[in-house]
Amino acid sequence: MGFVAFIGAGPGAADLITVRGARLLAQAEVVLHDALTDPALRELAPQARWIDVGKRGFCDSVAQTSINALLVRHGRADRRVVRLKGGDPSVFGRLEEELEALLAAGIDCEVVPGVTAAIAAAAATRRPLTRRGSGRSVSLSTAMTAVAGPRPAAGAPATHAAGPLRATRTADTEVIYMAGKQLAALGRQLAQAGWPADTPVSVVSRAGWPDQIHSDHRVETLAGAALLHAGRPTVVTVGAGARPVQAAAGHDDAAAIAAVPTPSGAARTPPAPRARNP
Amino acid sequence: MGFVAFIGAGPGAADLITVRGARLLAQAEVVLHDALTDPALRELAPQARWIDVGKRGFCDSVAQTSINALLVRHGRADRRVVRLKGGDPSVFGRLEEELEALLAAGIDCEVVPGVTAAIAAAAATRRPLTRRGSGRSVSLSTAMTAVAGPRPAAGAPATHAAGPLRATRTADTEVIYMAGKQLAALGRQLAQAGWPADTPVSVVSRAGWPDQIHSDHRVETLAGAALLHAGRPTVVTVGAGARPVQAAAGHDDAAAIAAVPTPSGAARTPPAPRARNP
Repeated sequence: MGFVAFIGAGPGAADLITVRGARLLAQAEVVLHDALTDPALRELAPQARWIDVGKRGFCDSVAQTSINALLVRHGRADRRVVRLKGGDPSVFGRLEEELEALLAAGIDCEVVPGVTAAIAAAAATRRPLTRRGSGRSVSLSTAMTAVAGPRPAAGAPATHAAGPLRATRTADTEVIYMAGKQLAALGRQLAQAGWPADTPVSVVSRAGWPDQIHSDHRVETLAGAALLHAGRPTVVTVGAGARPVQAAAGHDDAAAIAAVPTPSGAARTPPAPRARNP
Repeated sequence: MGFVAFIGAGPGAADLITVRGARLLAQAEVVLHDALTDPALRELAPQARWIDVGKRGFCDSVAQTSINALLVRHGRADRRVVRLKGGDPSVFGRLEEELEALLAAGIDCEVVPGVTAAIAAAAATRRPLTRRGSGRSVSLSTAMTAVAGPRPAAGAPATHAAGPLRATRTADTEVIYMAGKQLAALGRQLAQAGWPADTPVSVVSRAGWPDQIHSDHRVETLAGAALLHAGRPTVVTVGAGARPVQAAAGHDDAAAIAAVPTPSGAARTPPAPRARNP
């Protein structure tokens, strides 16, 4: 009886899906997909029926119930179902509700992890989220949260309301998802949470896409990013992980590099000399 | 002049690398790789020279200097170099030092993100790190940290010392990397940080591998995980993200599923009260 593979599609560009995810897509009969995934992903599963269950433009809680029901219906029909989610399913992906529905229906499933947006933004800007000495912890949170509290009962009228924007200073690097619409408010909140006004803030929208935009700010000037990233999926990185990496002093010493210390004494063949291009 | 691709190999199993990472590996001439990556990854680049620069068994800081120098040497030799790192390069991957060395040497590079261990463990156990209502933030930190302070100068004698174990309660879900050797101490630290004694803790070693081990604990009984996961790469998840997902009540109503509600809001069966997790 049916099987659902939850697959993290990665942050956008189709080739940031995992090899496992791509393989399972190629075997899918039905693909329920979010709005944000790269259309090129379709080429990985031309045989499948693709159903857009992206939540844009209508109420989240109603949409979630529909998605759950679609998963169960297709799973029960004994189809190989893929639920393709942007980024990673376990990070701000509403995975719990969908797993709950499948468990209740007795449908087996697998979760294939993906590259989450925080990590994609770090890679695209070459700014590691952790830094030796100064960046020992990373926090992932979201600026767009429903009001905390008990989940509305299924069937109850949708009570979707944006919760208060919450910005904290609990880690050396804070990454805030879905902040695109609230950059000015976020800057104020970060200052109130104790981040110094000159703390670096790196803002990336559509990380890893050809039309990626990256801009550098400080906590006190974050509002200036609002227009630039308007209407685009945006990740905001604050603190240690937002700093540009600087060239090391001393590392371009030719003698030191030629001497490369051998860690364990294990013999390594020195690479064959090869003509270097000018 | 040379080019280095930093590639996140994912948490272990070779097919959790990204499609982009796999493609770049296939073009590599030299691969500098960590100790933890799946040997099956070699099949993606049989043409390349594979150099193990894993840090096991010798001093980290000396090893890091060697790795930096090797990257620069091979980059300068105009080779297509891949630096293959376990998990994601930007999360506890010591990426900054290597980028600094390449920048100093004027060698261009790219960072290809990967699946980090926290996310792989969540997927393997089907326990999302974020949960609607109860899991709005995730913290990534490590139990194994060098003493904070200025980095030793390049070439200086290694002054590697394990820093104090630090456990916090700053997010709804805390994930602690590299905790395998300190599980008993970690349990005490988590209690001191304010986590209730009965907070669920999920421990996963070798996430996503055939020999993965997963065990459930509470903060007060975490010490009991030590023997089970001894000597294995281990990720510890605490709080909201550690709870097993429970079957939803009401979602297996056949009529409701057949009727798949439309986004505008069809009637749904209210669920029975949700069971609390132990």
